[in-house]
Amino acid sequence: MIIITQPRVTEAQIDHIVARIEQFGLRSQVMRGESRVLIGVIGPDEVVRDKPLGAIPGVESVVPVMKPYKLVAQENGSLPPPVSIGDVKLGSGQRVVLISGPCSVESKERMLTIAKAVKQAGARVLRGGAFKPRTSPYSFQGLGEDGLRYLAEARAETGLPIITEIMDTRDLARVEKYADCLQIGSRNMQNFALLKEVGRSRLPVMLKRGFSATINDLLLSAEYILSEGNPRVLLCERGIRTFETMTRNTLDLNAVPILKAKTRLPVVVDPTHGIGLREFIPQMALAAVAAGADAVMVEVHDEPEEARSDGEQALRPEVFRDLVRRLRAVAEAVGREL
Amino acid sequence: MIIITQPRVTEAQIDHIVARIEQFGLRSQVMRGESRVLIGVIGPDEVVRDKPLGAIPGVESVVPVMKPYKLVAQENGSLPPPVSIGDVKLGSGQRVVLISGPCSVESKERMLTIAKAVKQAGARVLRGGAFKPRTSPYSFQGLGEDGLRYLAEARAETGLPIITEIMDTRDLARVEKYADCLQIGSRNMQNFALLKEVGRSRLPVMLKRGFSATINDLLLSAEYILSEGNPRVLLCERGIRTFETMTRNTLDLNAVPILKAKTRLPVVVDPTHGIGLREFIPQMALAAVAAGADAVMVEVHDEPEEARSDGEQALRPEVFRDLVRRLRAVAEAVGREL
Amino acid sequence: MIIITQPRVTEAQIDHIVARIEQFGLRSQVMRGESRVLIGVIGPDEVVRDKPLGAIPGVESVVPVMKPYKLVAQENGSLPPPVSIGDVKLGSGQRVVLISGPCSVESKERMLTIAKAVKQAGARVLRGGAFKPRTSPYSFQGLGEDGLRYLAEARAETGLPIITEIMDTRDLARVEKYADCLQIGSRNMQNFALLKEVGRSRLPVMLKRGFSATINDLLLSAEYILSEGNPRVLLCERGIRTFETMTRNTLDLNAVPILKAKTRLPVVVDPTHGIGLREFIPQMALAAVAAGADAVMVEVHDEPEEARSDGEQALRPEVFRDLVRRLRAVAEAVGREL
Amino acid sequence: MIIITQPRVTEAQIDHIVARIEQFGLRSQVMRGESRVLIGVIGPDEVVRDKPLGAIPGVESVVPVMKPYKLVAQENGSLPPPVSIGDVKLGSGQRVVLISGPCSVESKERMLTIAKAVKQAGARVLRGGAFKPRTSPYSFQGLGEDGLRYLAEARAETGLPIITEIMDTRDLARVEKYADCLQIGSRNMQNFALLKEVGRSRLPVMLKRGFSATINDLLLSAEYILSEGNPRVLLCERGIRTFETMTRNTLDLNAVPILKAKTRLPVVVDPTHGIGLREFIPQMALAAVAAGADAVMVEVHDEPEEARSDGEQALRPEVFRDLVRRLRAVAEAVGREL
Repeated sequence: MIIITQPRVTEAQIDHIVARIEQFGLRSQVMRGESRVLIGVIGPDEVVRDKPLGAIPGVESVVPVMKPYKLVAQENGSLPPPVSIGDVKLGSGQRVVLISGPCSVESKERMLTIAKAVKQAGARVLRGGAFKPRTSPYSFQGLGEDGLRYLAEARAETGLPIITEIMDTRDLARVEKYADCLQIGSRNMQNFALLKEVGRSRLPVMLKRGFSATINDLLLSAEYILSEGNPRVLLCERGIRTFETMTRNTLDLNAVPILKAKTRLPVVVDPTHGIGLREFIPQMALAAVAAGADAVMVEVHDEPEEARSDGEQALRPEVFRDLVRRLRAVAEAVGREL
Repeated sequence: MIIITQPRVTEAQIDHIVARIEQFGLRSQVMRGESRVLIGVIGPDEVVRDKPLGAIPGVESVVPVMKPYKLVAQENGSLPPPVSIGDVKLGSGQRVVLISGPCSVESKERMLTIAKAVKQAGARVLRGGAFKPRTSPYSFQGLGEDGLRYLAEARAETGLPIITEIMDTRDLARVEKYADCLQIGSRNMQNFALLKEVGRSRLPVMLKRGFSATINDLLLSAEYILSEGNPRVLLCERGIRTFETMTRNTLDLNAVPILKAKTRLPVVVDPTHGIGLREFIPQMALAAVAAGADAVMVEVHDEPEEARSDGEQALRPEVFRDLVRRLRAVAEAVGREL
Repeated sequence: MIIITQPRVTEAQIDHIVARIEQFGLRSQVMRGESRVLIGVIGPDEVVRDKPLGAIPGVESVVPVMKPYKLVAQENGSLPPPVSIGDVKLGSGQRVVLISGPCSVESKERMLTIAKAVKQAGARVLRGGAFKPRTSPYSFQGLGEDGLRYLAEARAETGLPIITEIMDTRDLARVEKYADCLQIGSRNMQNFALLKEVGRSRLPVMLKRGFSATINDLLLSAEYILSEGNPRVLLCERGIRTFETMTRNTLDLNAVPILKAKTRLPVVVDPTHGIGLREFIPQMALAAVAAGADAVMVEVHDEPEEARSDGEQALRPEVFRDLVRRLRAVAEAVGREL
Repeated sequence: MIIITQPRVTEAQIDHIVARIEQFGLRSQVMRGESRVLIGVIGPDEVVRDKPLGAIPGVESVVPVMKPYKLVAQENGSLPPPVSIGDVKLGSGQRVVLISGPCSVESKERMLTIAKAVKQAGARVLRGGAFKPRTSPYSFQGLGEDGLRYLAEARAETGLPIITEIMDTRDLARVEKYADCLQIGSRNMQNFALLKEVGRSRLPVMLKRGFSATINDLLLSAEYILSEGNPRVLLCERGIRTFETMTRNTLDLNAVPILKAKTRLPVVVDPTHGIGLREFIPQMALAAVAAGADAVMVEVHDEPEEARSDGEQALRPEVFRDLVRRLRAVAEAVGREL
């Protein structure tokens, strides 16, 4: 931590700042520049981070030096990569995993149909929402526990492990009963009560980046889960909100190599929400693999015109099948396999 | 709802679109322009809104005509303005209400000290966080139920009704026992499980705009609360996330007159988070009143250097006192009173 | 300037960094923290700023300490406030100045009509665009020099000094012949060739903040003008581009007190573009004055339905007249006058 | 164009709107929904687009139907793809072209060294800035015409055609004398005077997307160039400004397939500015090719520590060489070649 003082800081203010630092059990080092004084704060950053150093008179700004997250950091040797969903490993370095399925679970039959189609095409994990976070209260809110049951039946039929979203702390036991992996949606990325709750689960958690969360925010939310004892976290880039209105979101593929460098957690990319326009999802999926994603999640629906949510951005099974072939080629071009 | 077709739409596609609309029990009207065909969809928008019209072949885009929210709309005569917190009315048109207190409840003594100071200065509602949503798991997370108790004691002493944040659906009964108004924080604005839960409360709810939520998103989240039966919602603008890094957030005062025009719900402005820099909070509070806010919420702390959260942006009691005097003058200049 | 090293920096790398700093004729001070090494760079920041310190092996990041602008800084005693447009002083601390007129100069008659109306209502500077920056090449591009002439005639008739936009370095002499103040539009805020050109003008320059420029960028663009010898710069906040689509821009009133604190240049607010919705412009103008603006610029048109640009956001003269009355009351409430 | 009326529009208002439309020589069609009236405007959109329809009483909003650009549109059969820089074709569908060189031209020797290195590695076009748009007036502003000369000498030596930035309308003749392709930088994307000027050049123009320009804005700026008679435009995605601060910009690869679908102009991606962090540029270059870019532009410097601009994000020649190999593999995986 470095304290930068105001231009006209007094000696008495400097003494007071130094005294405060010592009260916190830390050491300081004063450096006098041409116009300002810098005060280095030496000691564990997490002790200092929570103190309102910026509120001390004479302080202009406070520059953190260490990263605010620890458990998720690359250098943390105790992270157990890769993370498994069922028996599918993600983040092994070699294999790129495809996660697919409908946006929402709509009925038992449809769920089965789609599950078989995506499995046959090459998906290795099945997705489907039973609890749906919808911007409007008048939109379809999901089938709830029935949806979970249909997912489990699709797993029984296809062998694909399942990932599904949890939205309420009270639902953990219920969702755990069926799911192989919990999903925290973009809108709940900073629902800290929920993060703590899934931090106590035995299941892996796919944490979707909030649509306005910085990479740092995402890592701190992952840190919440790890700090509760659950190290099995997948980070998912799914597009951020920008001024561009032609696409649903702006898929931030910059995040992929950065997350890979900063943490050992596997990185998933969701091009479906990331661009939100069906015809362009394949190119963004290809780009995600080229950028180094460990997994790609793509929504598929056999009858998009009838989908109860996000039909506009669902791929038809035959389009998905063709995409898998192209993804395989790109994966191999970057030294991986699908 | 208007459907705009692709440039080379076929007659068969148009027929199919029209047939779909009729399947939904709606009527359509086809309008042929120079290069495209427009299809007006006549009937209640909410029926159509949830259908994936954009997924029908030949459709280029779908333009909604009606607002997606109903209960919160200005024209909804059943909204009961103003909303009261304890016996303090907000949104009466005439009076501007000051809400103040510390960011977090830190101790019984400090809570009392600050409560007395803000009451004396002119605040009419007391705020304080017992459950704190913090970006990092290593930051102070609030005193929990003890914090609620200290708040209640401060109310007993000062007569000020209290507002405090709820973060977990499981906490409703506990928070309701103490609070006069529930606060939904910015990060939970789209925590739909929580919105539904407070929609079943007998208490008013102050809904803070998500830092990346559009005004439309905010109104839809309010709609969640109203649609569960609780019409007593306050909307709070508290700054949005933009590319500007010199301020903590960008206070979007544009939202004030727009929200006043679109809904009859009272509008609160939080300049403390909106700019996040202590020395500039007063000017933004003044601007909020000039823009038409029904209430202003400002954080105050008697010893900002010792605050356990947000000390950098807390006003000292004497600065707050001076601000109240200036706010009163501006309120009167725009035909209101404080 | 502070260099923060990577976690596993070697001693050889530190030596190399220090040697580089000395090569630049600067001094360094090394501070060893628990996990990283900090290297303070002592000497004039501007010497260092231009060097690619971040490219030296072992460097993780470089933190600037001093502000990158000098001439525009508050502490620069040689700035000559206030700035005058004709004989109207802006930034005197006391008086708030109203700038008004149509978006574009459309005809001699209309220009005169509007000029008289805004003068009578209380405007003290007249605006009008002769060269119009339009997003589309098919939109009205302004009357060019004819427009300038009509503006000058309106000045002759009303006595109001005039401000008008310059878009091309080749137009300086032509625009200087007529204008009392040059306007650099939002889209040209980082047109550095143009900034240098107006930096050599004898006229004051109103520099509009780019719709995606940080406050820091704005100050650096002002610095371009001052560094060419023209200290008479007005800074204009006119709304920034954010994710919000309900308003044309997000008026960033946070910028007002911050600019006032960082520089002695006068600060103008343009609520017309800042919100872009006619019915809400008055409230934002009031808020601008409450936030501390030195001047407010509002577009007025006598027949908005016929305007050749931005008719949607022009106030009718009678609405403007009423607004002036309200602005006067708020100005007085914050200790100023109109 | 569709006009959506306000909820309580009167019949007289509707008549007035219809009359206005007819005054413009267009036809209208009125459609009465449950709560609002829609008025379709039939006729060429460009006639209507410039009229302030939103200013007519009773109008709530105006929805454009046709795209505001014409010449750049995909369906415009007169566009002559591909565009050539010297004898290098871009946008041929098959080949992906590498553009490379230093950020700034710094000296004759260095320019030659780098030109030879990038040519040998596989670059087919040489870049280098002689006129540099820098945020601060105190940063290196480029060598001017000397820089152009050194570029031309590097071309003579290596055979690589050159692309370089133009910043001032007055420089066109001078830059045309040396360059094979003009670059319009991000900050000048809406410098309309400059766009018109290069629209009259015989050289191709690479138009970089403004860092806050929507895709629509970019296409309209391209339209400016085409509407002056120059159809040889390349569109360059180079990152947009978002709330994320860990990267210099957010590379918006979504733009690649969208631009390819909306226009026949070749699409270039600049990952160097798009992420701004040297170690991650290769992954983003690979992703750009996977997403469908026609060309990739990467900055290379033989001694990044000594670079006079952007040293932090320059690749060393050997890193670039390795990247070319990987780019070739990905290009082939998506059915193209390098």
